[in-house]
Amino acid sequence: MLEDVKRALCAVVMITVTPFDGAGQIDGPGYRSVLRRTLDAGIDVVTPNGNTSEFYSLTAVERDQALALTVEEAAGRALVVAGVGYDVRTAVESAVSARAAGAGAVMIHQPVHPYLSAAGWVDYHRAVAEAVPELGVVCYLRSPHIPAGALAELARVAPNFVGVKYAVPDPVAFGQAIAVVEDAAGADRLVWICGLAETWAPFFWPVGAEGFTSGLANVTPQLSLRLLSALRTDRNAARDLWRLLKPFEDLRAASGSADNVTVVKEALAQLDLCGRTVRPPISELSAAGQAEVAEWLKSVAG
Amino acid sequence: MLEDVKRALCAVVMITVTPFDGAGQIDGPGYRSVLRRTLDAGIDVVTPNGNTSEFYSLTAVERDQALALTVEEAAGRALVVAGVGYDVRTAVESAVSARAAGAGAVMIHQPVHPYLSAAGWVDYHRAVAEAVPELGVVCYLRSPHIPAGALAELARVAPNFVGVKYAVPDPVAFGQAIAVVEDAAGADRLVWICGLAETWAPFFWPVGAEGFTSGLANVTPQLSLRLLSALRTDRNAARDLWRLLKPFEDLRAASGSADNVTVVKEALAQLDLCGRTVRPPISELSAAGQAEVAEWLKSVAG
Repeated sequence: MLEDVKRALCAVVMITVTPFDGAGQIDGPGYRSVLRRTLDAGIDVVTPNGNTSEFYSLTAVERDQALALTVEEAAGRALVVAGVGYDVRTAVESAVSARAAGAGAVMIHQPVHPYLSAAGWVDYHRAVAEAVPELGVVCYLRSPHIPAGALAELARVAPNFVGVKYAVPDPVAFGQAIAVVEDAAGADRLVWICGLAETWAPFFWPVGAEGFTSGLANVTPQLSLRLLSALRTDRNAARDLWRLLKPFEDLRAASGSADNVTVVKEALAQLDLCGRTVRPPISELSAAGQAEVAEWLKSVAG
Repeated sequence: MLEDVKRALCAVVMITVTPFDGAGQIDGPGYRSVLRRTLDAGIDVVTPNGNTSEFYSLTAVERDQALALTVEEAAGRALVVAGVGYDVRTAVESAVSARAAGAGAVMIHQPVHPYLSAAGWVDYHRAVAEAVPELGVVCYLRSPHIPAGALAELARVAPNFVGVKYAVPDPVAFGQAIAVVEDAAGADRLVWICGLAETWAPFFWPVGAEGFTSGLANVTPQLSLRLLSALRTDRNAARDLWRLLKPFEDLRAASGSADNVTVVKEALAQLDLCGRTVRPPISELSAAGQAEVAEWLKSVAG
């Protein structure tokens, strides 16, 4: 079972968007239709309640709702990796709820606490992992201050810790972390996922990434899947796809990633798939930004 | 009333620690006795549920409990600035609860959402401010991506926005932000607080800081108060105090601030004021770290 989760994670791990209706509430039908279209295109791992899902703008009830919508739509079609986080008790409770709701794995957000120690990081993740021993657990590493030894220690104490979503933009450190964990825990102990999406996936691949996260897959799932395939077999094709996708990811990354989610929703709105509404502290694109998204969609059409 | 809050904020703004008992629950008597000692020393502004309070490790019930303990102890003695945060609805509800509990102001944590736009940032803070128009509102700025224009805009739309807790380690940007807001909204519209505590206060002072936050004040309130007084009147005395306090703050800042809270609790434990227990994702100090804290306490004793 945990081995199945590991195999599945070698994939495009799509982070679902959370469409809102005109009143600012979760748009259930929109959520399902955006998701269904990506499953139809071949996406087989999805993470509700990730950052692209506006995790930090959702209430606890809404997080449960997003997970339920995902499981209903993806059941039998894709591995559901539920995002959980906040204080350690909330994260544990969310993981237990995710198991009850039918998720196959959980992705533990980097703790929001602004201060993290290596030992405290291990304890936090271990507490969540022990609460759901049957589920695969993926950690989300965003801080350069968590040493590879902490990953190795978590691998030692938590048998269901199966994967790392690595989101520090440092491919050298990524390669070194893999080496440290392999030395301590064996070559196939963990699956390594580039947590910085299409922009960084080619640079994480040479040292051991086997999948990457994607917000773009909500919009153009077939392009993300083609990139995955090319990374495995065809460097030049991967480079060409990278060049094609990069302008979209650049729009998302501008101004400290202010528009990370907004650009995805804008593209989906232009494709008539859901509304463009987002919640504070993020906001909708200017007319100029909307035009840039339209331009990019035109560039990949056909 | 709002003018009273502004006057009060020109102060050492102490962020309360949240002592835990052996079972890891909030230690109410410990909380009150640590706080009472600082009030007795002259601390007159306190923020429960700040980062030094392990805000992100507390449940919603515990955040209410910490605020209630603070108000009970500080009533009539200090301005209570309650920390609120998370998604915008939770922040609004927490602000309304804080008013009911008797807080005089709220401090809005930087939204935890990893993506922030300037317009979304204003909307987020405006929503909280409008929910508690009688309370002073202080924003906590930790991202260099929020432009000074957003502060000016918030000052325009939210009359009860009274202060900025500025925590970007860039005194030049701090000075420029003050200039921009003064041009747009007038010289006395906001109170500017150094949000980076004793280490940075002397560098924020020349361009307009009138107070600073402090975790250290939980341990040695009289030293923080002396620094405030020296900053106002005596550059050389301030520099000497800065040199005296800096080693403690350096212990807190090491390893990406992993031990920011832990060092404060360790010092309080050595002074027999409360336990040293912290919650994951942070952890207790090594024996070597404990010795360094003991060393520093010795250096400021007497």
